[in-house]
Amino acid sequence: MISGKNNELIKEIKKLMSSAKERRQRGLFAAEGVRLCRDALRSGAHIVYFLYTEEAAEKNKEDFGCIMSAADKCICVSGDIFKKISDTGTPQGFMCIIGNKLDTYITEIESGKRYLGLENIQDPSNLGTILRTAEALGSDGVIMSVGCCDVYSPKVVRGSMGAVFRIPFMIVEDMSEFVAYSGKIGIPTYASTPHDAENIEDTDFSRGGIMLIGNEGSGLKEETVRLCMKRVRIEMRGRAESLNAAAAAAILLYKFSL
Amino acid sequence: MISGKNNELIKEIKKLMSSAKERRQRGLFAAEGVRLCRDALRSGAHIVYFLYTEEAAEKNKEDFGCIMSAADKCICVSGDIFKKISDTGTPQGFMCIIGNKLDTYITEIESGKRYLGLENIQDPSNLGTILRTAEALGSDGVIMSVGCCDVYSPKVVRGSMGAVFRIPFMIVEDMSEFVAYSGKIGIPTYASTPHDAENIEDTDFSRGGIMLIGNEGSGLKEETVRLCMKRVRIEMRGRAESLNAAAAAAILLYKFSL
Repeated sequence: MISGKNNELIKEIKKLMSSAKERRQRGLFAAEGVRLCRDALRSGAHIVYFLYTEEAAEKNKEDFGCIMSAADKCICVSGDIFKKISDTGTPQGFMCIIGNKLDTYITEIESGKRYLGLENIQDPSNLGTILRTAEALGSDGVIMSVGCCDVYSPKVVRGSMGAVFRIPFMIVEDMSEFVAYSGKIGIPTYASTPHDAENIEDTDFSRGGIMLIGNEGSGLKEETVRLCMKRVRIEMRGRAESLNAAAAAAILLYKFSL
Repeated sequence: MISGKNNELIKEIKKLMSSAKERRQRGLFAAEGVRLCRDALRSGAHIVYFLYTEEAAEKNKEDFGCIMSAADKCICVSGDIFKKISDTGTPQGFMCIIGNKLDTYITEIESGKRYLGLENIQDPSNLGTILRTAEALGSDGVIMSVGCCDVYSPKVVRGSMGAVFRIPFMIVEDMSEFVAYSGKIGIPTYASTPHDAENIEDTDFSRGGIMLIGNEGSGLKEETVRLCMKRVRIEMRGRAESLNAAAAAAILLYKFSL
Protein backbone atom coordinates (compact mmCIF):
# COMPACT_ATOMS: atom_id res chain seq x y z
CA MET A 1 0.00 0.00 0.00
CA ILE A 2 1.26 3.47 -0.89
CA SER A 3 0.97 5.90 2.00
CA GLY A 4 3.76 8.37 1.22
CA LYS A 5 2.87 11.43 -0.82
CA ASN A 6 6.35 11.64 -2.31
CA ASN A 7 5.86 8.37 -4.17
CA GLU A 8 6.68 8.93 -7.87
CA LEU A 9 3.43 7.45 -9.18
CA ILE A 10 1.35 9.64 -6.86
CA LYS A 11 3.22 12.71 -8.07
CA GLU A 12 2.57 11.70 -11.69
CA ILE A 13 -1.14 11.20 -11.04
CA LYS A 14 -1.46 14.58 -9.38
CA LYS A 15 0.05 16.10 -12.52
CA LEU A 16 -2.41 14.19 -14.72
CA MET A 17 -5.30 15.53 -12.65
CA SER A 18 -4.23 19.15 -12.99
CA SER A 19 -2.50 19.51 -16.36
CA ALA A 20 -3.99 19.13 -19.84
CA LYS A 21 -0.47 19.26 -21.29
CA GLU A 22 0.59 16.35 -19.09
CA ARG A 23 -2.46 14.34 -20.14
CA ARG A 24 -1.71 15.00 -23.80
CA GLN A 25 1.97 14.15 -23.52
CA ARG A 26 1.39 10.96 -21.55
CA GLY A 27 -1.72 9.92 -23.48
CA LEU A 28 -3.44 9.23 -20.16
CA PHE A 29 -6.36 10.63 -18.17
CA ALA A 30 -8.18 9.84 -14.94
CA ALA A 31 -11.71 8.62 -14.17
CA GLU A 32 -12.66 8.87 -10.53
CA GLY A 33 -15.50 7.31 -8.56
CA VAL A 34 -17.10 3.86 -8.54
CA ARG A 35 -19.59 4.57 -11.28
CA LEU A 36 -17.13 6.20 -13.67
CA CYS A 37 -14.58 3.40 -13.18
CA ARG A 38 -17.32 0.86 -13.94
CA ASP A 39 -18.31 2.90 -17.01
CA ALA A 40 -14.68 2.95 -18.18
CA LEU A 41 -14.50 -0.83 -17.84
CA ARG A 42 -17.80 -1.45 -19.66
CA SER A 43 -16.76 0.88 -22.46
CA GLY A 44 -13.66 -1.24 -23.07
CA ALA A 45 -11.25 1.53 -22.13
CA HIS A 46 -7.63 0.57 -21.51
CA ILE A 47 -7.16 0.83 -17.73
CA VAL A 48 -3.44 1.36 -17.16
CA TYR A 49 -3.62 1.87 -13.40
CA PHE A 50 -6.39 1.15 -10.94
CA LEU A 51 -5.93 2.99 -7.64
CA TYR A 52 -8.15 2.15 -4.71
CA THR A 53 -8.43 2.41 -0.94
CA GLU A 54 -8.96 -0.75 1.16
CA GLU A 55 -12.19 0.70 2.48
CA ALA A 56 -13.58 1.31 -1.04
CA ALA A 57 -12.53 -2.19 -2.18
CA GLU A 58 -14.38 -3.70 0.79
CA LYS A 59 -17.46 -1.60 0.13
CA ASN A 60 -17.67 -2.30 -3.63
CA LYS A 61 -16.50 -5.89 -3.87
CA GLU A 62 -18.07 -6.79 -7.21
CA ASP A 63 -16.88 -3.66 -9.05
CA PHE A 64 -13.51 -4.02 -7.38
CA GLY A 65 -13.06 -7.57 -8.67
CA CYS A 66 -14.07 -6.69 -12.25
CA ILE A 67 -11.91 -3.57 -12.50
CA MET A 68 -8.98 -5.32 -10.80
CA SER A 69 -8.94 -8.13 -13.33
CA ALA A 70 -9.08 -5.73 -16.28
CA ALA A 71 -6.45 -3.23 -15.13
CA ASP A 72 -2.77 -3.51 -16.13
CA LYS A 73 -1.66 -2.61 -12.62
CA CYS A 74 -3.57 -2.25 -9.35
CA ILE A 75 -2.34 -0.06 -6.52
CA CYS A 76 -3.75 0.19 -3.03
CA VAL A 77 -3.30 3.65 -1.50
CA SER A 78 -4.09 5.06 1.94
CA GLY A 79 -7.18 7.21 2.44
CA ASP A 80 -4.98 10.26 3.03
CA ILE A 81 -3.13 9.78 -0.24
CA PHE A 82 -6.38 9.24 -2.12
CA LYS A 83 -7.66 12.57 -0.81
CA LYS A 84 -4.49 14.20 -2.17
CA ILE A 85 -4.97 12.88 -5.71
CA SER A 86 -8.76 13.22 -5.76
CA ASP A 87 -10.49 16.02 -7.64
CA THR A 88 -13.67 15.79 -5.51
CA GLY A 89 -14.56 16.91 -2.00
CA THR A 90 -15.77 13.48 -0.93
CA PRO A 91 -13.58 10.91 -2.72
CA GLN A 92 -15.04 7.41 -3.18
CA GLY A 93 -11.66 5.67 -3.20
CA PHE A 94 -11.68 4.34 -6.80
CA MET A 95 -9.64 5.86 -9.65
CA CYS A 96 -8.71 4.49 -13.07
CA ILE A 97 -5.89 5.95 -15.13
CA ILE A 98 -6.91 5.37 -18.72
CA GLY A 99 -5.07 5.34 -22.01
CA ASN A 100 -6.74 7.88 -24.28
CA LYS A 101 -6.53 5.79 -27.41
CA LEU A 102 -10.25 5.14 -27.35
CA ASP A 103 -12.25 3.64 -30.18
CA THR A 104 -14.48 6.65 -30.27
CA TYR A 105 -12.67 9.01 -32.61
CA ILE A 106 -14.71 10.09 -35.61
CA THR A 107 -12.67 9.77 -38.77
CA GLU A 108 -15.30 10.85 -41.28
CA ILE A 109 -18.65 12.61 -40.91
CA GLU A 110 -21.56 10.94 -42.67
CA SER A 111 -24.57 12.29 -44.47
CA GLY A 112 -27.90 11.94 -42.64
CA LYS A 113 -26.32 11.72 -39.20
CA ARG A 114 -26.64 14.30 -36.41
CA TYR A 115 -23.51 15.87 -35.00
CA LEU A 116 -22.83 18.57 -32.49
CA GLY A 117 -20.08 21.11 -33.21
CA LEU A 118 -18.55 22.99 -30.27
CA GLU A 119 -16.36 26.04 -30.81
CA ASN A 120 -14.22 27.17 -27.86
CA ILE A 121 -16.42 25.97 -24.98
CA GLN A 122 -14.33 27.09 -21.99
CA ASP A 123 -16.02 25.74 -18.89
CA PRO A 124 -15.35 22.07 -18.06
CA SER A 125 -18.71 21.70 -16.29
CA ASN A 126 -20.49 22.99 -19.39
CA LEU A 127 -18.52 20.68 -21.69
CA GLY A 128 -19.20 17.65 -19.46
CA THR A 129 -22.93 18.41 -19.29
CA ILE A 130 -23.11 19.00 -23.05
CA LEU A 131 -21.45 15.63 -23.81
CA ARG A 132 -23.88 13.90 -21.42
CA THR A 133 -26.83 15.66 -23.10
CA ALA A 134 -25.55 14.83 -26.60
CA GLU A 135 -25.37 11.16 -25.67
CA ALA A 136 -28.77 11.11 -23.94
CA LEU A 137 -30.43 12.71 -26.96
CA GLY A 138 -28.76 10.35 -29.42
CA SER A 139 -26.22 12.56 -31.18
CA ASP A 140 -24.01 10.62 -33.56
CA GLY A 141 -20.89 12.48 -32.48
CA VAL A 142 -19.32 15.67 -31.25
CA ILE A 143 -16.81 17.81 -33.15
CA MET A 144 -14.79 20.13 -30.91
CA SER A 145 -12.41 22.93 -31.83
CA VAL A 146 -8.96 22.76 -30.20
CA GLY A 147 -9.98 25.93 -28.35
CA CYS A 148 -12.47 23.94 -26.24
CA CYS A 149 -11.28 22.98 -22.74
CA ASP A 150 -9.61 19.57 -22.48
CA VAL A 151 -12.17 16.79 -22.94
CA TYR A 152 -10.07 14.58 -20.64
CA SER A 153 -10.01 16.95 -17.66
CA PRO A 154 -11.40 15.37 -14.47
CA LYS A 155 -14.36 17.79 -14.39
CA VAL A 156 -15.37 17.05 -17.97
CA VAL A 157 -15.05 13.28 -17.49
CA ARG A 158 -17.16 13.46 -14.32
CA GLY A 159 -19.75 15.93 -15.66
CA SER A 160 -20.19 13.78 -18.77
CA MET A 161 -21.22 10.84 -16.55
CA GLY A 162 -19.00 8.64 -18.68
CA ALA A 163 -20.28 9.89 -22.05
CA VAL A 164 -16.66 10.77 -22.83
CA PHE A 165 -15.95 7.00 -23.01
CA ARG A 166 -18.77 6.34 -25.41
CA ILE A 167 -19.76 9.24 -27.64
CA PRO A 168 -17.75 9.46 -30.85
CA PHE A 169 -15.79 12.67 -31.13
CA MET A 170 -13.25 14.55 -33.20
CA ILE A 171 -11.05 17.53 -32.42
CA VAL A 172 -10.46 20.01 -35.24
CA GLU A 173 -7.88 22.79 -35.53
CA ASP A 174 -10.27 25.33 -37.04
CA MET A 175 -14.06 25.06 -36.85
CA SER A 176 -14.60 27.52 -39.71
CA GLU A 177 -12.55 25.35 -42.05
CA PHE A 178 -14.41 22.27 -40.89
CA VAL A 179 -17.76 23.97 -41.54
CA ALA A 180 -16.59 24.97 -45.03
CA TYR A 181 -15.49 21.39 -45.71
CA SER A 182 -18.83 20.01 -44.44
CA GLY A 183 -20.69 22.35 -46.76
CA LYS A 184 -18.62 21.16 -49.73
CA ILE A 185 -19.50 17.52 -49.12
CA GLY A 186 -23.21 18.40 -48.69
CA ILE A 187 -23.59 18.16 -44.90
CA PRO A 188 -25.99 20.84 -43.57
CA THR A 189 -24.57 23.13 -40.88
CA TYR A 190 -26.63 25.19 -38.39
CA ALA A 191 -25.10 28.12 -36.50
CA SER A 192 -26.86 28.85 -33.22
CA THR A 193 -26.75 32.61 -32.83
CA PRO A 194 -29.24 35.19 -31.55
CA HIS A 195 -28.72 37.53 -34.52
CA ASP A 196 -30.53 37.33 -37.90
CA ALA A 197 -31.52 33.78 -37.23
CA GLU A 198 -34.54 31.57 -37.79
CA ASN A 199 -36.56 30.36 -34.79
CA ILE A 200 -35.71 26.65 -34.29
CA GLU A 201 -39.47 25.97 -34.24
CA ASP A 202 -39.55 26.85 -37.95
CA THR A 203 -36.44 24.94 -39.02
CA ASP A 204 -36.55 21.59 -40.77
CA PHE A 205 -33.76 19.50 -39.25
CA SER A 206 -34.79 16.27 -40.98
CA ARG A 207 -31.61 16.07 -43.08
CA GLY A 208 -29.44 16.02 -39.95
CA GLY A 209 -26.01 17.61 -40.20
CA ILE A 210 -24.06 19.62 -37.65
CA MET A 211 -25.51 21.87 -34.94
CA LEU A 212 -22.89 24.45 -33.96
CA ILE A 213 -22.62 26.08 -30.54
CA GLY A 214 -20.02 28.69 -29.59
CA ASN A 215 -18.13 30.05 -26.62
CA GLU A 216 -19.99 30.93 -23.40
CA GLY A 217 -19.17 34.63 -23.60
CA SER A 218 -18.71 35.41 -27.26
CA GLY A 219 -20.67 32.71 -29.08
CA LEU A 220 -19.55 31.32 -32.45
CA LYS A 221 -16.88 33.16 -34.41
CA GLU A 222 -18.25 35.43 -37.14
CA GLU A 223 -16.41 33.45 -39.80
CA THR A 224 -17.96 30.19 -38.57
CA VAL A 225 -21.48 31.69 -38.55
CA ARG A 226 -20.94 33.09 -42.05
CA LEU A 227 -19.95 29.72 -43.46
CA CYS A 228 -22.90 27.81 -41.96
CA MET A 229 -25.84 26.86 -44.18
CA LYS A 230 -28.37 28.34 -41.76
CA ARG A 231 -28.55 30.48 -38.61
CA VAL A 232 -30.94 29.32 -35.91
CA ARG A 233 -32.03 30.75 -32.57
CA ILE A 234 -34.00 29.85 -29.48
CA GLU A 235 -36.90 32.23 -28.90
CA MET A 236 -36.37 34.12 -25.62
CA ARG A 237 -39.27 35.53 -23.67
CA GLY A 238 -37.73 36.86 -20.47
CA ARG A 239 -35.39 39.57 -19.38
CA ALA A 240 -32.31 37.35 -19.10
CA GLU A 241 -29.95 38.19 -21.90
CA SER A 242 -29.09 34.63 -22.69
CA LEU A 243 -29.17 31.00 -21.71
CA ASN A 244 -26.21 29.18 -20.19
CA ALA A 245 -24.33 27.28 -22.95
CA ALA A 246 -25.31 23.87 -21.56
CA ALA A 247 -28.99 24.87 -21.29
CA ALA A 248 -28.97 26.24 -24.84
CA ALA A 249 -27.26 23.07 -26.07
CA ALA A 250 -29.95 20.93 -24.41
CA ILE A 251 -32.77 22.78 -26.19
CA LEU A 252 -30.98 22.86 -29.55
CA LEU A 253 -30.03 19.18 -29.40
CA TYR A 254 -33.54 18.26 -28.35
CA LYS A 255 -35.10 20.00 -31.36
CA PHE A 256 -32.33 18.63 -33.57
CA SER A 257 -33.02 15.07 -32.40
CA LEU A 258 -36.77 15.04 -33.04
CA MET B 1 -9.69 51.28 3.85
CA ILE B 2 -9.96 47.93 5.60
CA SER B 3 -6.80 45.88 5.24
CA GLY B 4 -6.93 43.72 8.38
CA LYS B 5 -8.61 40.35 8.13
CA ASN B 6 -9.68 40.43 11.78
CA ASN B 7 -12.02 43.34 11.13
CA GLU B 8 -15.50 42.42 12.47
CA LEU B 9 -17.34 43.29 9.25
CA ILE B 10 -14.98 41.15 7.17
CA LYS B 11 -15.54 38.22 9.53
CA GLU B 12 -19.31 38.67 9.21
CA ILE B 13 -19.14 38.76 5.44
CA LYS B 14 -17.07 35.59 5.30
CA LYS B 15 -19.79 33.92 7.37
CA LEU B 16 -22.48 35.21 4.99
CA MET B 17 -20.58 33.74 2.04
CA SER B 18 -20.30 30.28 3.56
CA SER B 19 -23.38 29.75 5.74
CA ALA B 20 -27.03 29.51 4.64
CA LYS B 21 -28.05 29.68 8.31
CA GLU B 22 -26.17 32.94 8.74
CA ARG B 23 -27.81 34.38 5.61
CA ARG B 24 -31.25 33.38 6.89
CA GLN B 25 -30.70 34.75 10.39
CA ARG B 26 -29.25 38.03 9.18
CA GLY B 27 -31.64 38.42 6.24
CA LEU B 28 -28.64 39.26 4.04
CA PHE B 29 -26.81 37.75 1.09
CA ALA B 30 -23.93 38.67 -1.20
CA ALA B 31 -23.72 39.47 -4.91
CA GLU B 32 -20.20 39.56 -6.27
CA GLY B 33 -18.79 40.94 -9.50
CA VAL B 34 -19.40 44.13 -11.48
CA ARG B 35 -22.26 42.76 -13.52
CA LEU B 36 -24.14 41.21 -10.61
CA CYS B 37 -23.77 44.36 -8.49
CA ARG B 38 -25.16 46.39 -11.40
CA ASP B 39 -28.03 43.88 -11.75
CA ALA B 40 -28.79 44.17 -8.03
CA LEU B 41 -28.95 47.96 -8.32
CA ARG B 42 -31.16 47.90 -11.42
CA SER B 43 -33.50 45.41 -9.78
CA GLY B 44 -34.06 47.83 -6.91
CA ALA B 45 -32.50 45.53 -4.31
CA HIS B 46 -31.63 47.06 -0.93
CA ILE B 47 -27.81 47.32 -0.91
CA VAL B 48 -26.78 47.37 2.76
CA TYR B 49 -23.01 47.30 2.16
CA PHE B 50 -21.00 47.93 -0.98
CA LEU B 51 -17.43 46.59 -0.70
CA TYR B 52 -14.90 47.48 -3.36
CA THR B 53 -11.20 47.68 -4.05
CA GLU B 54 -9.62 50.94 -5.20
CA GLU B 55 -8.48 49.25 -8.38
CA ALA B 56 -12.00 48.05 -9.25
CA ALA B 57 -13.49 51.48 -8.50
CA GLU B 58 -10.97 53.08 -10.86
CA LYS B 59 -11.67 50.52 -13.58
CA ASN B 60 -15.49 50.71 -13.40
CA LYS B 61 -16.10 54.37 -12.62
CA GLU B 62 -19.66 54.63 -13.88
CA ASP B 63 -20.94 51.50 -12.12
CA PHE B 64 -18.97 52.50 -9.04
CA GLY B 65 -20.68 55.87 -8.85
CA CYS B 66 -24.18 54.48 -9.29
CA ILE B 67 -23.78 51.65 -6.77
CA MET B 68 -22.03 53.97 -4.30
CA SER B 69 -24.90 56.44 -4.28
CA ALA B 70 -27.49 53.69 -3.77
CA ALA B 71 -25.75 51.73 -1.00
CA ASP B 72 -26.36 52.38 2.70
CA LYS B 73 -22.66 52.05 3.46
CA CYS B 74 -19.59 51.85 1.21
CA ILE B 75 -16.38 50.21 2.34
CA CYS B 76 -13.06 50.21 0.54
CA VAL B 77 -11.02 47.05 1.21
CA SER B 78 -7.54 46.01 0.17
CA GLY B 79 -7.08 43.53 -2.68
CA ASP B 80 -5.84 40.90 -0.22
CA ILE B 81 -8.92 41.21 1.95
CA PHE B 82 -11.20 41.08 -1.09
CA LYS B 83 -9.58 37.80 -2.10
CA LYS B 84 -10.34 36.45 1.37
CA ILE B 85 -14.07 37.24 1.19
CA SER B 86 -14.48 36.40 -2.51
CA ASP B 87 -16.12 33.18 -3.65
CA THR B 88 -14.41 33.25 -7.06
CA GLY B 89 -10.91 32.44 -8.25
CA THR B 90 -10.44 35.80 -9.97
CA PRO B 91 -12.32 38.41 -7.91
CA GLN B 92 -13.43 41.58 -9.70
CA GLY B 93 -13.32 43.74 -6.57
CA PHE B 94 -17.06 44.60 -6.30
CA MET B 95 -19.42 43.03 -3.77
CA CYS B 96 -22.87 44.07 -2.59
CA ILE B 97 -24.41 42.77 0.61
CA ILE B 98 -28.12 42.77 -0.01
CA GLY B 99 -31.18 42.63 2.23
CA ASN B 100 -33.24 39.64 1.15
CA LYS B 101 -36.61 41.34 1.47
CA LEU B 102 -37.02 41.49 -2.26
CA ASP B 103 -40.22 42.37 -4.04
CA THR B 104 -40.13 39.10 -5.88
CA TYR B 105 -41.91 36.74 -3.52
CA ILE B 106 -44.95 35.03 -5.00
CA THR B 107 -47.87 35.21 -2.63
CA GLU B 108 -50.49 33.49 -4.78
CA ILE B 109 -50.25 31.37 -7.91
CA GLU B 110 -52.52 32.38 -10.75
CA SER B 111 -54.44 30.43 -13.32
CA GLY B 112 -53.05 30.55 -16.89
CA LYS B 113 -49.52 31.40 -15.80
CA ARG B 114 -46.46 29.17 -16.15
CA TYR B 115 -44.51 28.23 -13.04
CA LEU B 116 -41.59 25.96 -12.37
CA GLY B 117 -41.64 23.75 -9.27
CA LEU B 118 -38.33 22.47 -7.91
CA GLU B 119 -38.21 19.70 -5.31
CA ASN B 120 -34.91 19.24 -3.45
CA ILE B 121 -32.48 20.47 -6.12
CA GLN B 122 -29.17 20.02 -4.30
CA ASP B 123 -26.48 21.49 -6.52
CA PRO B 124 -26.09 25.30 -6.40
CA SER B 125 -24.78 25.43 -9.99
CA ASN B 126 -27.84 23.53 -11.19
CA LEU B 127 -30.21 25.78 -9.25
CA GLY B 128 -28.50 28.94 -10.56
CA THR B 129 -28.63 27.71 -14.16
CA ILE B 130 -32.28 26.65 -13.79
CA LEU B 131 -33.30 30.09 -12.47
CA ARG B 132 -31.46 31.74 -15.38
CA THR B 133 -33.19 29.42 -17.85
CA ALA B 134 -36.61 29.98 -16.26
CA GLU B 135 -36.18 33.73 -16.63
CA ALA B 136 -34.86 33.54 -20.21
CA LEU B 137 -37.80 31.37 -21.27
CA GLY B 138 -40.33 33.62 -19.60
CA SER B 139 -41.49 31.57 -16.60
CA ASP B 140 -43.88 33.50 -14.36
CA GLY B 141 -42.21 32.23 -11.20
CA VAL B 142 -40.39 29.43 -9.42
CA ILE B 143 -41.69 27.44 -6.47
CA MET B 144 -38.94 25.70 -4.47
CA SER B 145 -39.22 23.16 -1.67
CA VAL B 146 -37.24 24.01 1.50
CA GLY B 147 -35.10 20.98 0.63
CA CYS B 148 -33.56 22.86 -2.32
CA CYS B 149 -30.14 24.38 -1.70
CA ASP B 150 -30.16 28.00 -0.51
CA VAL B 151 -31.28 30.31 -3.30
CA TYR B 152 -29.09 33.07 -1.78
CA SER B 153 -25.82 31.10 -1.82
CA PRO B 154 -23.05 32.87 -3.78
CA LYS B 155 -22.96 30.09 -6.40
CA VAL B 156 -26.69 30.24 -7.05
CA VAL B 157 -26.72 34.04 -7.25
CA ARG B 158 -23.80 33.96 -9.70
CA GLY B 159 -25.06 31.02 -11.80
CA SER B 160 -28.46 32.69 -12.10
CA MET B 161 -26.78 35.74 -13.74
CA GLY B 162 -28.94 37.93 -11.54
CA ALA B 163 -32.24 36.12 -12.24
CA VAL B 164 -32.48 35.64 -8.46
CA PHE B 165 -33.10 39.42 -8.20
CA ARG B 166 -35.85 39.41 -10.77
CA ILE B 167 -37.76 36.15 -11.11
CA PRO B 168 -40.68 35.81 -8.68
CA PHE B 169 -40.30 32.88 -6.33
CA MET B 170 -41.81 31.13 -3.34
CA ILE B 171 -40.38 28.59 -0.91
CA VAL B 172 -42.75 25.89 0.33
CA GLU B 173 -42.36 23.48 3.24
CA ASP B 174 -43.75 20.47 1.39
CA MET B 175 -44.03 20.24 -2.40
CA SER B 176 -46.58 17.40 -2.28
CA GLU B 177 -48.96 19.53 -0.22
CA PHE B 178 -48.43 22.44 -2.57
CA VAL B 179 -49.22 20.24 -5.58
CA ALA B 180 -52.37 18.99 -3.86
CA TYR B 181 -53.42 22.58 -3.13
CA SER B 182 -52.73 23.63 -6.74
CA GLY B 183 -54.89 20.78 -8.00
CA LYS B 184 -57.75 21.87 -5.74
CA ILE B 185 -57.74 25.42 -7.13
CA GLY B 186 -57.61 24.12 -10.72
CA ILE B 187 -53.96 24.75 -11.60
CA PRO B 188 -52.54 21.95 -13.82
CA THR B 189 -49.41 20.22 -12.47
CA TYR B 190 -46.93 18.21 -14.56
CA ALA B 191 -44.47 15.78 -12.94
CA SER B 192 -41.34 15.21 -14.98
CA THR B 193 -40.42 11.58 -14.48
CA PRO B 194 -39.08 8.87 -16.79
CA HIS B 195 -41.65 6.27 -15.61
CA ASP B 196 -45.18 5.80 -16.98
CA ALA B 197 -45.12 9.24 -18.48
CA GLU B 198 -46.32 10.93 -21.67
CA ASN B 199 -43.75 12.20 -24.18
CA ILE B 200 -43.68 16.02 -23.85
CA GLU B 201 -44.13 16.18 -27.64
CA ASP B 202 -47.67 14.86 -27.14
CA THR B 203 -48.64 17.03 -24.18
CA ASP B 204 -50.84 20.10 -24.47
CA PHE B 205 -49.33 22.73 -22.16
CA SER B 206 -51.58 25.55 -23.36
CA ARG B 207 -53.32 25.90 -19.98
CA GLY B 208 -50.03 26.67 -18.24
CA GLY B 209 -49.67 25.54 -14.64
CA ILE B 210 -46.67 24.13 -12.80
CA MET B 211 -43.85 22.05 -14.30
CA LEU B 212 -42.25 19.99 -11.52
CA ILE B 213 -38.63 18.84 -11.51
CA GLY B 214 -37.05 16.76 -8.75
CA ASN B 215 -33.73 16.03 -7.10
CA GLU B 216 -30.65 15.31 -9.24
CA GLY B 217 -30.25 11.76 -7.95
CA SER B 218 -33.70 10.59 -6.94
CA GLY B 219 -36.07 12.77 -8.97
CA LEU B 220 -39.43 13.86 -7.61
CA LYS B 221 -40.83 12.18 -4.49
CA GLU B 222 -43.38 9.44 -5.23
CA GLU B 223 -46.05 11.32 -3.31
CA THR B 224 -45.46 14.45 -5.40
CA VAL B 225 -45.61 12.51 -8.69
CA ARG B 226 -48.81 10.77 -7.54
CA LEU B 227 -50.55 14.07 -6.80
CA CYS B 228 -49.67 15.72 -10.13
CA MET B 229 -52.29 15.97 -12.85
CA LYS B 230 -49.98 14.47 -15.46
CA ARG B 231 -46.61 12.72 -15.78
CA VAL B 232 -44.38 13.86 -18.62
CA ARG B 233 -41.01 12.71 -19.94
CA ILE B 234 -38.30 13.71 -22.38
CA GLU B 235 -37.72 11.04 -25.03
CA MET B 236 -34.19 9.66 -24.68
CA ARG B 237 -32.38 8.13 -27.61
CA GLY B 238 -28.90 7.42 -26.35
CA ARG B 239 -27.20 5.20 -23.84
CA ALA B 240 -26.88 7.83 -21.11
CA GLU B 241 -29.28 6.99 -18.31
CA SER B 242 -30.43 10.52 -17.81
CA LEU B 243 -29.97 14.18 -18.46
CA ASN B 244 -28.41 16.57 -15.97
CA ALA B 245 -31.17 18.36 -13.99
CA ALA B 246 -30.38 21.75 -15.55
CA ALA B 247 -30.38 20.29 -19.10
CA ALA B 248 -33.70 18.51 -18.46
CA ALA B 249 -35.15 21.71 -17.00
CA ALA B 250 -34.10 23.65 -20.12
CA ILE B 251 -35.90 21.23 -22.45
CA LEU B 252 -39.01 20.98 -20.25
CA LEU B 253 -39.26 24.76 -19.78
CA TYR B 254 -38.73 25.30 -23.49
CA LYS B 255 -41.63 23.02 -24.42
CA PHE B 256 -43.70 24.47 -21.58
CA SER B 257 -43.11 28.02 -22.83
CA LEU B 258 -44.15 27.47 -26.47
